[in-house]
Amino acid sequence: MTEPLFRRVALIGIGLIGSSMALAMRRHGLAGEIVCATRSEKSRAAALRLGLVDAVHEDAASAARGADLVVLATPIGAFARIAAEIGPVVAAGTIVTDVGSVKGMVLRDVGPHLPLNVHLVPGHPVAGTEHSGPESGFAELFENRWCILTPPDDADAAAVDKVEALWAAMGAKVDRMSAQHHDLVLAITSHVPHLIAYNIVGTASDLEAVTQSEVIKYSAGGFRDFTRIAASDPTMWRDIFLNNREAVLEMLGRFVEDLTALQRAIRWGEGDALFDLFTKTRAIRRSIVDAGQETPAADFGRRVPGGGE
Amino acid sequence: MTEPLFRRVALIGIGLIGSSMALAMRRHGLAGEIVCATRSEKSRAAALRLGLVDAVHEDAASAARGADLVVLATPIGAFARIAAEIGPVVAAGTIVTDVGSVKGMVLRDVGPHLPLNVHLVPGHPVAGTEHSGPESGFAELFENRWCILTPPDDADAAAVDKVEALWAAMGAKVDRMSAQHHDLVLAITSHVPHLIAYNIVGTASDLEAVTQSEVIKYSAGGFRDFTRIAASDPTMWRDIFLNNREAVLEMLGRFVEDLTALQRAIRWGEGDALFDLFTKTRAIRRSIVDAGQETPAADFGRRVPGGGE
Repeated sequence: MTEPLFRRVALIGIGLIGSSMALAMRRHGLAGEIVCATRSEKSRAAALRLGLVDAVHEDAASAARGADLVVLATPIGAFARIAAEIGPVVAAGTIVTDVGSVKGMVLRDVGPHLPLNVHLVPGHPVAGTEHSGPESGFAELFENRWCILTPPDDADAAAVDKVEALWAAMGAKVDRMSAQHHDLVLAITSHVPHLIAYNIVGTASDLEAVTQSEVIKYSAGGFRDFTRIAASDPTMWRDIFLNNREAVLEMLGRFVEDLTALQRAIRWGEGDALFDLFTKTRAIRRSIVDAGQETPAADFGRRVPGGGE
Repeated sequence: MTEPLFRRVALIGIGLIGSSMALAMRRHGLAGEIVCATRSEKSRAAALRLGLVDAVHEDAASAARGADLVVLATPIGAFARIAAEIGPVVAAGTIVTDVGSVKGMVLRDVGPHLPLNVHLVPGHPVAGTEHSGPESGFAELFENRWCILTPPDDADAAAVDKVEALWAAMGAKVDRMSAQHHDLVLAITSHVPHLIAYNIVGTASDLEAVTQSEVIKYSAGGFRDFTRIAASDPTMWRDIFLNNREAVLEMLGRFVEDLTALQRAIRWGEGDALFDLFTKTRAIRRSIVDAGQETPAADFGRRVPGGGE
């Protein structure tokens, strides 16, 4: 029997990502022992009932003690507090990673709390669903998805390689980039899309001329797809916007600028400008499907009433 | 053998909706004969090859001659021209309907071209996918989806009932409302969502700091779902925005107003305002799922990497 990649993994937080990691690590034999910490009694019970972990803890420090890998998998707003709790107990040589959607703030909030002989390797698996909690996890979540690592310049090379090996073993493709660039890329591919989805669903629910029941009945015209995104975890997303403010506001500025031009084109009946944009965007869709970033299941889903008219 | 609902149906246009209607009408025995007209030689060949129709025509008038139901199923920008072509040949008592996404303009563009003894019953099945053309149709497209009829005040009651019976037989739920109200409702549930999806995909493809390949690789963070909507037919959508200008600009104004408030909340770090909005939008998602306007297939799709983080 070969040694697992990690002897003891401590998952701090056991939501969609944490539970999916637990299932994937088990399936691929990547951890000798998996424990988790969560302040929610309900989540601790679920984690044990579903067999996700070998032991549960209420506080992060108890879980992190003795682990050779600690994974921060809570909403990112809790990272600073958790880092302060685990800093005193993590052993020399331990790797601390995370799965947060913003990366610059990890170096800022987590780094200072860790001893110098502990290796911080921030990471972000670009995968998810709009479901939350330990029941929503599944072992295949990361397969064929990208995981981005943003190690600081002075990161321990062996530790970074080991985190990369973990993600690769769970089926992910791994990229490395600076935290700053990550936060800019994700602002446009994830954060602003979520923001405008939340926004249009909010707008639709506040109208006087159109009732909420009409919005729900006729949601198959396109709106429905936005509500799916706008059903993502509120705490997680609040923390993302608060912690990637600059990049989000920059990308949002570009979005609004382009939208204003589009608004003007509609007002003045500039059909060619509309047609050209709509043709260009269609080509990008094709590239995403070609790049394997659309799932067969989603493809099947498109055969039944989806977006469109 | 019972009589079919219509003796001879002429589909003018045989894209996603036209071909789905042909398949659904055949499956449920709703038409004695189905013919279609399309100027595209390729589409005519496909319609015959796929057995969608009994005969194909190049021009609308030839197809409409002798039909007791004519369905306009082209992009709405072609409606005025088609109405002018078929006006002189449609027989007294014929029902003319359409499947366009904007309804006020049907009364304006189509009505004046038809003889007084021909019954115009505008309709809009709120269903679709981002795929186009005769190959993309499927008989189940309208099942459990709403179809909105917007008959003018002086419409022939029997004709309206017959169009309603057609949609009900194809599995749709039917609603009636004024064309003006339809155009307002659809502006928020369909047209503005499509517009902002097109817009964000356009914004993402024009950035200098983030490459197109990065946008594609990391699209699973939410962006991907927008590209699906932004892959819808460019001609169809250009025509929609040009023909529902007022309602789209009104709803877009509300969207931008709300987005500006959200932008400000992010800039000033107002976490509670963000959290409250994100919680409200989650509840609306639940109502849509409860109302059966999400499909089992899409639900399955959510079990593999979808929106989320």
